[in-house]
Amino acid sequence: MPEPATSLSRDKALIFIPEDPRPEWTSKLQVKYPGIQIRWHRSIDENGALVSYEHLPGEVWDDLTVLCAFAPPPAKYLRNVRFVQLTSAGADKWMQHETYKDHRVIFCTTNGIHPPQIAEWVIGTWISHQHHFSRYESQMRRGYWEPPYSSRVQDSTRARMGILGYGAIGRQCARLANAMGMDVYAYTRTEKTTAESRKDDSYCVSGTGDPDGLIPSKWFHGASRDEVDTFLGQNLDILVISLPLTESTRGIISHKQFEILSVNKTFVCNIARGGHIDQEALIRALETGQIRGAALDVTDPEPLPRDHPLWKAPNLLITPHVSWLSDYYWDRILDILEINLENLAENKALINVVNRQHHY
Amino acid sequence: MPEPATSLSRDKALIFIPEDPRPEWTSKLQVKYPGIQIRWHRSIDENGALVSYEHLPGEVWDDLTVLCAFAPPPAKYLRNVRFVQLTSAGADKWMQHETYKDHRVIFCTTNGIHPPQIAEWVIGTWISHQHHFSRYESQMRRGYWEPPYSSRVQDSTRARMGILGYGAIGRQCARLANAMGMDVYAYTRTEKTTAESRKDDSYCVSGTGDPDGLIPSKWFHGASRDEVDTFLGQNLDILVISLPLTESTRGIISHKQFEILSVNKTFVCNIARGGHIDQEALIRALETGQIRGAALDVTDPEPLPRDHPLWKAPNLLITPHVSWLSDYYWDRILDILEINLENLAENKALINVVNRQHHY
Repeated sequence: MPEPATSLSRDKALIFIPEDPRPEWTSKLQVKYPGIQIRWHRSIDENGALVSYEHLPGEVWDDLTVLCAFAPPPAKYLRNVRFVQLTSAGADKWMQHETYKDHRVIFCTTNGIHPPQIAEWVIGTWISHQHHFSRYESQMRRGYWEPPYSSRVQDSTRARMGILGYGAIGRQCARLANAMGMDVYAYTRTEKTTAESRKDDSYCVSGTGDPDGLIPSKWFHGASRDEVDTFLGQNLDILVISLPLTESTRGIISHKQFEILSVNKTFVCNIARGGHIDQEALIRALETGQIRGAALDVTDPEPLPRDHPLWKAPNLLITPHVSWLSDYYWDRILDILEINLENLAENKALINVVNRQHHY
Repeated sequence: MPEPATSLSRDKALIFIPEDPRPEWTSKLQVKYPGIQIRWHRSIDENGALVSYEHLPGEVWDDLTVLCAFAPPPAKYLRNVRFVQLTSAGADKWMQHETYKDHRVIFCTTNGIHPPQIAEWVIGTWISHQHHFSRYESQMRRGYWEPPYSSRVQDSTRARMGILGYGAIGRQCARLANAMGMDVYAYTRTEKTTAESRKDDSYCVSGTGDPDGLIPSKWFHGASRDEVDTFLGQNLDILVISLPLTESTRGIISHKQFEILSVNKTFVCNIARGGHIDQEALIRALETGQIRGAALDVTDPEPLPRDHPLWKAPNLLITPHVSWLSDYYWDRILDILEINLENLAENKALINVVNRQHHY
């Protein structure tokens, strides 16, 4: 048996998340890394209100070296911290923080905890549309059994999915699409020509995703709108938007793009940010039948106001920014934290390390 | 280059299906098998009415050796027929037919043309339920953006699918479930302990299904209700019913079975026949919350009468026996016919051969 690693023996970690302490998780780590101190405080009180850092006992900060939390605590508490496990996909909240500016401190995201549920959302909205579920549901309300041959269905065996942003989420969408017999095209910002460059080493729930980048039959790339438009013109049946929102991706799908998508009446799924789509153009595309339908988990603004015209657009499903929800959310964050503590102990590279240029 | 097979040179085939003749399909075969005669007549007229055999020109029957059609023609026309490609999954319509009783005539089904679209239907109804799509759709009608954390979602990464009847349809359900991270349990009538016995050599759309039977983590079998009940007790999150309807499977899911399924509030998907489920017991199971929900593409009777209480049961989606619909339906039947003509020419075993004991 290998000798247990002991390089965490002086580490003191604070876990400050909206979950009750999990003694079995803590003791498993402590058996493996004797000496590590784990201080676990629930970040939401009995009434569902956020607990502020001031309400924590002062000792939690003593010699703290590892933090797992959502909001950044004052920098004075973090002088000895060497590793921060965020509980979000981006580091935006930390951008001006002294600890974040210190590049010796490793920050890691939760990249990879969302793909299973978001890919289900994408495939579910696509199937619901292609198989006319919402029409059948409304027919149920009047007890109406539609006669045979009233419907036509294109199953997915000849469909093509285009994934704009082939990260962890896009990869699990690809896996499901592939299992249905679909062709998958991937779009990335930078060129991915080698097998190595197509890999994604972020956290991945076992048995899901496309960590080696083997699924897409064709790869596209570029940072310009023209290159994106070329991708949109690839006879896609479904377009998945899974990009970060930046100045260069804001409004990336507008009138001209719906014109391009109209050739194949591409179904549009947005699980990224509302700002990616020009909503006026989307309403027009849906009303004129340029595209067969769309599903949005994100809008601009959120919440979408009660009288917003998007609510009434045809062939559209809107959900209130919930596609990321999963009962296994915190299990996966703790899983990433555990992997990263192990990697830290064994002097291995951590996973999901924040890129300080992009802050995710 | 291998010499072209010529053993179909004396064959005369009648294709009588609701599709227009496809010259490219026919000539491809004729190039490969010179001498084969293909007589193709559309079985539905311009008004959508079925064409009867009497309206076909008498010559179509001359020396006929191969038939591809839905309804059985009079036996007197089929004296030289050696192969009948059915356009249905079962041979029920032929059971009393003289040609069918002649065991020298090979009958083949369309097994394998339905799995892609039916598996999409199964996974789509499951995701719609787990992700609360129908609630969001009704909230859209009032422009209501539900506040965050109002919902809980169990994604499928820890779910278990039980498939009652692991044939071609069940296998594609398994492939999708597996891609989502689910555990899959299979149930078959006869025991499948060897790798060979787990294979399914029926027609399979390329890139779909589980032809080698590698996906299930556990196999169950039996012909008795007790054995089925044991399977239902395996903490299933979703149960897929994909069995033929026989006297031994009628009413296989009734009060006692919903009691068993209540432990895990199993979601029930029926894409087989309405008669498999005791509908009174189902309504009760849904109303009392014994199960989390259900989706039925089949009911008893069909059409379901307007005032039937099933229409009003909670957490239920009913579709009017449409899960098999696909625009690629006839392409696949012609694909099977082509494979089987090739196998016939090359003296190989045909695919989808009817088992004359079970008639499918």
